[in-house]
Amino acid sequence: MKIALAQLNYHIGNFEGNLQKMLAAVESAKKQGADLICFGELAVCGYPPRDFLEFDDFIRQSYESIKALRHASRGIGIVVGAPTRNPFLEGKDLYNSAYFLYEGQTLGVQHKTLLPTYDIFDEYRYFEPATEFHAVEFKGKKIALSICEDIWNVGNENPLYTICPLDEMMTEQPDLILNISASPFNYAHASLRIHTVRANVERYKIPMFYVNHVGAQTDIIFDGGSIVMSPDGQVFDEMSYFEEELKIYDLGEVIGGGRTNEQAKDKIKLIHDALVIGIRDYFQKLNFKKAILGLSGGIDSAVTAVLAVRALGKKNVRVLLMPSQFSSRHSVDDARQLAENLGIQYDLIAIQPVFGAFETALLPHFEGQPFNVTEENIQARIRGVLLMAMSNKFGHILLNTTNKSEMAVGYGTLYGDMCGGISVLGDVYKTEVYELAKYLNRDGEVIPQNSIAKPPSAELRPGQKDTDSLPPYETLDPLLYQYIECHQGPRELVEMGFDEALVKRVLRMVNINEFKREQAAPVLRVSSKGFGMGRRMPIVGKYLS
Amino acid sequence: MKIALAQLNYHIGNFEGNLQKMLAAVESAKKQGADLICFGELAVCGYPPRDFLEFDDFIRQSYESIKALRHASRGIGIVVGAPTRNPFLEGKDLYNSAYFLYEGQTLGVQHKTLLPTYDIFDEYRYFEPATEFHAVEFKGKKIALSICEDIWNVGNENPLYTICPLDEMMTEQPDLILNISASPFNYAHASLRIHTVRANVERYKIPMFYVNHVGAQTDIIFDGGSIVMSPDGQVFDEMSYFEEELKIYDLGEVIGGGRTNEQAKDKIKLIHDALVIGIRDYFQKLNFKKAILGLSGGIDSAVTAVLAVRALGKKNVRVLLMPSQFSSRHSVDDARQLAENLGIQYDLIAIQPVFGAFETALLPHFEGQPFNVTEENIQARIRGVLLMAMSNKFGHILLNTTNKSEMAVGYGTLYGDMCGGISVLGDVYKTEVYELAKYLNRDGEVIPQNSIAKPPSAELRPGQKDTDSLPPYETLDPLLYQYIECHQGPRELVEMGFDEALVKRVLRMVNINEFKREQAAPVLRVSSKGFGMGRRMPIVGKYLS
Repeated sequence: MKIALAQLNYHIGNFEGNLQKMLAAVESAKKQGADLICFGELAVCGYPPRDFLEFDDFIRQSYESIKALRHASRGIGIVVGAPTRNPFLEGKDLYNSAYFLYEGQTLGVQHKTLLPTYDIFDEYRYFEPATEFHAVEFKGKKIALSICEDIWNVGNENPLYTICPLDEMMTEQPDLILNISASPFNYAHASLRIHTVRANVERYKIPMFYVNHVGAQTDIIFDGGSIVMSPDGQVFDEMSYFEEELKIYDLGEVIGGGRTNEQAKDKIKLIHDALVIGIRDYFQKLNFKKAILGLSGGIDSAVTAVLAVRALGKKNVRVLLMPSQFSSRHSVDDARQLAENLGIQYDLIAIQPVFGAFETALLPHFEGQPFNVTEENIQARIRGVLLMAMSNKFGHILLNTTNKSEMAVGYGTLYGDMCGGISVLGDVYKTEVYELAKYLNRDGEVIPQNSIAKPPSAELRPGQKDTDSLPPYETLDPLLYQYIECHQGPRELVEMGFDEALVKRVLRMVNINEFKREQAAPVLRVSSKGFGMGRRMPIVGKYLS
Repeated sequence: MKIALAQLNYHIGNFEGNLQKMLAAVESAKKQGADLICFGELAVCGYPPRDFLEFDDFIRQSYESIKALRHASRGIGIVVGAPTRNPFLEGKDLYNSAYFLYEGQTLGVQHKTLLPTYDIFDEYRYFEPATEFHAVEFKGKKIALSICEDIWNVGNENPLYTICPLDEMMTEQPDLILNISASPFNYAHASLRIHTVRANVERYKIPMFYVNHVGAQTDIIFDGGSIVMSPDGQVFDEMSYFEEELKIYDLGEVIGGGRTNEQAKDKIKLIHDALVIGIRDYFQKLNFKKAILGLSGGIDSAVTAVLAVRALGKKNVRVLLMPSQFSSRHSVDDARQLAENLGIQYDLIAIQPVFGAFETALLPHFEGQPFNVTEENIQARIRGVLLMAMSNKFGHILLNTTNKSEMAVGYGTLYGDMCGGISVLGDVYKTEVYELAKYLNRDGEVIPQNSIAKPPSAELRPGQKDTDSLPPYETLDPLLYQYIECHQGPRELVEMGFDEALVKRVLRMVNINEFKREQAAPVLRVSSKGFGMGRRMPIVGKYLS
């Protein structure tokens, strides 16, 4: 039996687009002699569809897609994910299902059992878990269908769940396991995924075919990396990261095993590739072409600009240099040098005259008040207005350049440098931004060395440095990581050796700036805990602040 | 037996504040001869605690509060909500529990069974449902403890759930039901709540004591309205809306029944009171005192200003009048009149000079481009910068004045009039804003009649009217209501009689503006479906756009 895995880039709610893409893959797989083709979880509607699922019309369109695929299943089996209406009065209205279609018929429908409801996932908001487990007979083989999380409770050892759907299915002695997933990227996830597939294969001693989504849906990025594992526990094949791919496997060869084809998993390269596809898909799926951003001469905007050029092409990226009276000569030079290195359009708008107009307008009200963060914020906001004006006039979408360290401690101006349609680096700590910069420069200097080497500064008052307000990033970032990614509270952090006063200060900064993050752009998620839907904190909450 | 219901305003994560408030209530109830006092769901930590629950230290502090309350339970029973660690390896880490404390002991702990995971609720993200159901014996009575949603599946007829915890508990023949709730306000909810309590009482023929939270937690507002219902199905008492209250009831009298004490439920008054407490608690719980907002002479900012004065006092509200060259003479006069009627500080800053400075700065880039929405947005953003500058300099928090109709169709400028710490009217349709204005003027004109009577306009270009870009609000609002609150899709809307072209146009406007709402201020929630956590839509989603 020949099994095709179609690792595709779906688009939420784009039924027509998703269907055409799948039908083309079906045709291609048929031509190549595949008996069966497998698409991802909720492939007909894209993942995560969120509250679109609450519209009956949306579900109706999903059914239409399944009907079309069923029609296309002459001569080839099709496994595809789609929502199914729950026919029973009790429980949530929908199931998250895997359809097995063949010869114009539905051979089987297996609902998802384990419904992730943590971090960015809200599946129990919409779906009822499966209570029945049946393998599907196809061309003399029994196939156990499973959906994403269903394989993440091996032997019922995951404390989140009380049932192991594949254990249930094994009473029917299936010959292989198919898993259709929508498993979002983070820089450590590909290894975990292989580990989990292996744990299943070792338990059941049968091969597993695991197919994932690829591409970004706003903040959530899918890396692909679909897996075929032989019963010997070896990775028979791991499909590309961040690219669509259709590959066909001979079941006999997979069962034979003895082959390992696993990809390298370099953290910074993975983050780089994820951010590039994240930018590209945000633009493509919203039908935008051109991006704009402000170049300060600092490292964050430099890295963002390079990533944007890689995602959209240099013709589609435009930058503004907007020095104030506090900008160093160096900053403008570095920004200009970067724009020239990238070959992108850049324009210079000095903000001093506009700043002067604001000062004059506010003078009657500010008389006698010292220069403080107010005036710093006005500068950042003038830049925001200028960038948005270019965006409005010419249709460039503004890229936000805030990094995760700044976003965590609120070191940024709401409606100023926090503006933007999508935050490129909001899940990348400052120390990781440096690593990204080095990675981008690995084949020659694109980002001027000076932008990398100089001490970070917002340049909003004379001689300002980030370390005036913040601990050094080498100290700050590990603490933030433990608090944000690892959920370590103040006691645990002190026990881990972090300075108590620092812990108190940093956790307070993180918590009192929840109101800023609430209004931030969506953040391309590359870690196990990004800001946004995956981290839900109260704003008026007093805990630790 | 005398039972005290303590309807309190908790503060998320403020363990010390919540505990002191509860201890004071315990003392007061004891003095008044109560045998038992009941607090709300998760009262020790406030509701909803969201991802704070993922911190072990947070749970530890909850346990400390329970310990202190247990200590205070000498001579009085205390029922109080708190998270409990799940001692079993399997399932979520926590339960959402009701503790029954007495004489320094824990008489019983009943976990919550029905975990709302829809709209603003994410309980299954954190909690494992109860599987055991036992009444607590106290002073010769058997008391069935239940938590909020637990009473919302009467006779298992709610399709969301498959178990009815009170049915399970009835095998022990309890004498009364206690329900500790954190049931958020919407303008139709108090009636529903009474209906539900009555359905339970009619089923089990025993009295029910239902105690709710009061006060706002950022966007989510609790209205109180705690209920005591006699076995005859009459509302023996309904406690105040939007006020803390401690009341003591004699069980014998409640069982005797024959008394009805239900409050009037006027939609606009309820919304009014909810918004006032919403503003007040946002400020109090974040330790802010003073508010600022822009007065345009239009109705939205006028209504917001009056609500702010009622919430914070006229000394704590300051307004800016920021006319442009497109502002009518009337608008400034109306705004000034309102400020004078309210007795609040107002200042006038003409934005023309700053606008001119932006025009000059952008001239080299905009040469030959016609005036369009770009210049409109610049004006709105200049106002945003000025308001935020006053906010930064003097500590006033900016109130956002956008209404729900505008927010729905994206008729507002991101980083301009969409700025603000909290959105006061973002869940109030324009047609309801008019009703609110009339309500505010019911005892004499506060809002100038002209602000109410004139056609709505953003005044960002000559002669502009809202109806240039939008259908009349009398047409728009009912359509938005059906789409947003009632989840009616395009087909259903047309079947309901809405014009097909209008449906297409409006739904498209709503959907393509998801990116703006993603960056909006939190919205005080007064309807059954507000923007924010309760409505989760994909941004790159193509459905209907």
